[in-house]
Order: sequence, then structure tokens, then C-alpha cells
Amino acid sequence: MKKELLKTTFCALALACSSNGLWAQNDIKEDFQPSTLNQPGQEYPMVNSQGYARFRVLIPDAQSVTVSLGLGGRGGTKLVKGTDGAWTGTTEGPMDEGFHYYHLTVDGGVLNDPGTLNFYGSCRWESGIEIPAHDRDFYALKKVPHGHVQQILFHSPSTSTERRAFVYTPPCYDKDSQTRYPVLYLQHGWGEDETAWSNQGHANLIMDNLIADGKIKPFIIVMTYGMTNDVKFGHIYEFTAKEFEAVLVDELVPYVDKHFRTLADRDHRAMAGLSMGGFETRLITLRRGEAFGYYGLLSGGLYMPDDFKEGPQPKGIFISCGSKENPDKVKEAGEALKAAGYKATWYVSEGTAHEFLTWRRSLYQMAPLLFK
Amino acid sequence: MKKELLKTTFCALALACSSNGLWAQNDIKEDFQPSTLNQPGQEYPMVNSQGYARFRVLIPDAQSVTVSLGLGGRGGTKLVKGTDGAWTGTTEGPMDEGFHYYHLTVDGGVLNDPGTLNFYGSCRWESGIEIPAHDRDFYALKKVPHGHVQQILFHSPSTSTERRAFVYTPPCYDKDSQTRYPVLYLQHGWGEDETAWSNQGHANLIMDNLIADGKIKPFIIVMTYGMTNDVKFGHIYEFTAKEFEAVLVDELVPYVDKHFRTLADRDHRAMAGLSMGGFETRLITLRRGEAFGYYGLLSGGLYMPDDFKEGPQPKGIFISCGSKENPDKVKEAGEALKAAGYKATWYVSEGTAHEFLTWRRSLYQMAPLLFK
Repeated sequence: MKKELLKTTFCALALACSSNGLWAQNDIKEDFQPSTLNQPGQEYPMVNSQGYARFRVLIPDAQSVTVSLGLGGRGGTKLVKGTDGAWTGTTEGPMDEGFHYYHLTVDGGVLNDPGTLNFYGSCRWESGIEIPAHDRDFYALKKVPHGHVQQILFHSPSTSTERRAFVYTPPCYDKDSQTRYPVLYLQHGWGEDETAWSNQGHANLIMDNLIADGKIKPFIIVMTYGMTNDVKFGHIYEFTAKEFEAVLVDELVPYVDKHFRTLADRDHRAMAGLSMGGFETRLITLRRGEAFGYYGLLSGGLYMPDDFKEGPQPKGIFISCGSKENPDKVKEAGEALKAAGYKATWYVSEGTAHEFLTWRRSLYQMAPLLFK
Repeated sequence: MKKELLKTTFCALALACSSNGLWAQNDIKEDFQPSTLNQPGQEYPMVNSQGYARFRVLIPDAQSVTVSLGLGGRGGTKLVKGTDGAWTGTTEGPMDEGFHYYHLTVDGGVLNDPGTLNFYGSCRWESGIEIPAHDRDFYALKKVPHGHVQQILFHSPSTSTERRAFVYTPPCYDKDSQTRYPVLYLQHGWGEDETAWSNQGHANLIMDNLIADGKIKPFIIVMTYGMTNDVKFGHIYEFTAKEFEAVLVDELVPYVDKHFRTLADRDHRAMAGLSMGGFETRLITLRRGEAFGYYGLLSGGLYMPDDFKEGPQPKGIFISCGSKENPDKVKEAGEALKAAGYKATWYVSEGTAHEFLTWRRSLYQMAPLLFK
């Protein structure tokens, strides 16, 4: 059953940008604004208050331009050429709230929209667009004290490389030189990298706001690259995450504990991940339970009570997904864990699929539960 | 004279990607390797040991594909379509060593090469390619202790925004909680942003290597966005940098002095910048000499002895450019400053124009001279 669930979860990735085709184009409100992820000064792509996305790219001599966003597997949004040489078009229906990856297909070639910023997903830097969510306030950039996001480079003997991670330190971290903090190791999904949780996920802003609102005690977040042994899409079950385990637990954790003021024990160390990062979290926490006390799977598989028959017991478990994924199985597993006496929490993000708004909300829900 | 020189400097930006057209294509060595700035797993663009660049993009139904790199103002490198639908081509001559921005023109539209990473320049995220320099060792990622690069978000009352900067802290910064460090404020050029000195410039790796080799005493570098009031290209003489001065000197410097262990006085604070960032450095250091003791102009104008008739005297001055820019004027000004008794150093980067290898080398030359 668990295997089946994971398959569903990972397949959902490819369908994640589907829109609701039931809306007729003449219902579209003409209140389009530039997407918040546009390059400086760029007007397009735009989004309206209903969640429609509108595109405009100037490629005067192209034969065809299609946007991969919208209409799910049915070919995306075809743009139409105007007399000014610009190709324009609007999604057939409103998109789900939150962040979406996309790209252009120009005359049969895969290229990015020059109007918007790029985000690493699908093993390439893709275009990104943001459909304003009704609850976007929790990840907004506000006038509150801000933590720092540090790029660190650490030596990895097991892979003979200098590797990169990003470390979020809370706003209070520089205030005194004595206080030590718990650490959450937070993993991205398949085809993404260590930039995803900051760029697409706004993990730092979510933390800044939670801390400013007094909803959590501050902790550190560490985000690194999890595709160490290059798992291929569709071959997730062959993935042992053994190579990544060595990098994460035996190399990165000691580096972080040496260079940051951490509380360096299992009770103050959590691991969580989205999608493939959840898969990794499950594999690594079940093998290396001595290193992590709190576990989070965000659209990335489930724990069952049987998982903990041997080895150290989890201090806390969080599992989540979007309501358009597999909410029943997440709820079932969460309730089973609770019934078995585990401190477990399940959460379903309303109206979202296998995408970043699910995971932003999941982090927001999970953070207050950690290290308690 | 100074005005004329600055004009030359800024115009050079547009010609910066010119290649030497004297080489015949039949001299090309077939030892092409993927550019080090390619996206993960991407073979193209490639570069050979002579500095030729070769491109390949799959856009089967395109009418024309041109790369802006190569042949200077004469239309770049036209790609030719093969039977497999891929467009390929090689620059007519070898490129200058180092980093170059470029883009594709596909059927009249400006798009990025999907093979390579993007870098913010010309007020857009451009494609980037790296021609390996003979002296690239000084900015290579090596197995040495690495400093961190921190993204900070600071509140700016003068612009009513939350603004971003990056802060390089040296490897030893976390070793003890008492040591305080000097700070260099380092500015990007026109159309670039606060990411440029790390992404294109490898400033952090240059510092890591200098420190590992014992060639400098560690210091902090702060890099922020300098186009606060949106100076338009070609209107540089109308640019007062007054708005930016308020953000930098009255808002960012206090933030950094509060959140980092700095030596918070003029004798331990430097300002330097490349191109427009040099222009800003000159304007701001001459108005706010009480804040900065060391000044650096990298392909960004000159100081003359008369500049310091009034106000605080500089503790050290560094001016530089590429040998393909205006080396005689840099040398003249440097010698005039020395003759007038100033602690001034001038430097010319051999074989480079108004591009990042000039500035990487300039930082490498300037860093050991600061805070002495």
C-alpha cells in the first residue's frame, strides 16, 4: 500500500500544473497584474484575481509558441501572434493558488519565458509564476526582523567534492554569542536543488513571520542538494539514498554543528522533505534514528507504526499533502500513528496539488510542532 | 578629461563580448569541453583550449537562431540548422578569457540558451559562458576552508522597502565569538545586481583562496543593489547616487555593524565598485569620506589629487581596468596620485576588456592592499 501511495505522489508531479477547464473565457476579469516573480520591470506574465495567467512574448518570426502551463496534459496554452510580433494568450481556466513551474515551446524548442525569474525544477532552470494565494500573508516579505540565509561550502570526503548548502539562521541569532538552537534539515524534491526551499518555498520568510508572531521558538534550517547519486525520474524505488545519507549525516551535520551554535543532539535535530525529499527523510530517519528526533514527510510518503518496531523512537512525526493528492491516506496513516501512541500530526493543504503552496503551508504547520 | 574617460568605460560595456576575427576556422582545435557555467548535465555550450565557443540548441522549426556572443557589433554568431533539428555554430574567433554574458535571438525574439545558467546583467537574467583563463586557479573552488555568503534583508526607511544584500564572512568568522573584522562594501555594475560579485565574480572563492594562502588578513565583504534610483544607460552623468548613498551609508552600514562583528570605523571600512559601481564609489566616498577609509574604482572612473583638497584623506586608493579599456589613463591617474603623496595603486588586467575577469583580478590585487 505504501509503495502504491508513493507512486501516486510522484506521478502527480507531472500533472501538477493542471488548471480547471470549466471556466469560460468570457468570465475573465480584466484585473491582471504582473506576477510577483517577474524579472525587474517586466509586465508579463500577468495573473488576475481569479487565478488566470496571461502571457506575452515578443518573437516576431516564430511559427508557434506554447506555454506548458494550463490545460494539464492537453498541450498547455497556445499563444497567438499579434500584428506587433508579440505572442499572447491566457490560460483556459484559473490555476491553483501558489507557485508553478513552466516553460515555453517555441518552434519545437524548450525555452524559458524572458519575462520571469528562473527556478530549478525538473533538473533544469524553469520559468516560474505565482498565483496569489488567499493566505499568502504567512510567506510575505514584511517589515519584521529577518533571519539570514547563508550559503556554505563544505568538504565531502565520501564524494570528493566541495558541496553547497543554505543555512537559515533566525533574526535573534546575532544578538548574543551564547544561545544555541535546534536544527531542521529540510530537503527539496526530485529535479530540484538546495535553492528550492528559499526561492520557491520562501522558507526564510515563513520562519521570520512565525517568529515575529511569537508562534515558534527560533530554530535553524539547513537545506542541501539531495540528488547525490542522481536518481532517475521513474526509478525512485531503486533509490536507497545511501550516498546522500553519508553526505548529510556524516559530513554536513558535523560541519553545521561545528560552524553554527546548534544544540547538537537528536532531541534538537529534525529532518523533513517534500516529495522525493520525504522519501529520503523516511529512508534516512529509519536507518539513522540516533541522529534525528523529529520527522516530516511533505507529499513524500508515509510512516506506519510498524516502521518503529526497532531502533530509536521518534519524538514527533508530521505528514502532509495537498487535498488534490492523497489526503485520505495521509489522514489514515496519521491516525494510525496516533492510535499507536506516537506524537503524530497530519495536515492537508486545501485546494492544492503536488506543488509548492502545499509545502509552504506544510512548513508553516510543522514548524510550531518541532522540538517540543 | 575625466568625463571623457568615463564615457569610454561605459561604452565599452556594449563591445565587451567582441572576439578576434583574425583566426581562420580551420585552425580550431577539436578539444571542446562543456562550459563550467552550464546547467547540470548539459553538454552545450562548449569551449575549446583556444577560447572558441560552440553552441547547440534544439529548436527544430525555427527560421533563424543567432548567438549574441562573438563578432562584436556585427551580428554575433549565426547558428546553422542540422538534419536533427539542432542549431549549431562556433564563434568566428577565440573569445577573451573569462566570463561573458550572451543570449539567443530566435526568430527575432531575445531568449536564453537553455544549456547554461543565467546571470543578472543588462537589467535581465542573461545566459553566461566561461572561457577558462590561464590564471583561473585564483578563483577556483578548492578544498580550503570556505567562508559563508549570507543573504540579509534589511529595512530601508528612505525607500520604504525591505532590501537585500549579500555578506561574505571569512572561514574563521565562526571560530570564536570575539574577533572583529574590517568590511569592504563592493558594488556591481550597471544592469547588474547584488548577486553579481558572487555569481559572476566568485568574490567568495577569491577571498577563500587568498586567506588560505596567507596573502590577506580576513575581512567581510558586503554586496547590495546599487541601482536604487534606476539610472538609465547612457544617462550616467545625471546620476547623483544620492538615494543609494542614503541606503548604503545611513541604513546598510548600521545594519551590518549591528548584526556582524565589524570594526565599525572609517579605518576599517572600504568601498569599491566595478563600472557604474565605481562611479557610485567615487561620488559617495568624496561626499561621505568620514565613513570610508579605502577606495577602489574597477573600470569605473578615476580619482585625481584635486578630489581630496577638502574633507577626510583616503587611507588607500586602488584604480584598475582591463588592457583593452583605458590603461594609460588609469596609469596616469595612479601615478599622479602617488606623486601627490597618496597611497595609491593602479593595476591593468592583461588581455581583458570591460568584463568580469578584469574585476576578479582587480579584487585579487586590491584585497591585500586594504586595511593596512
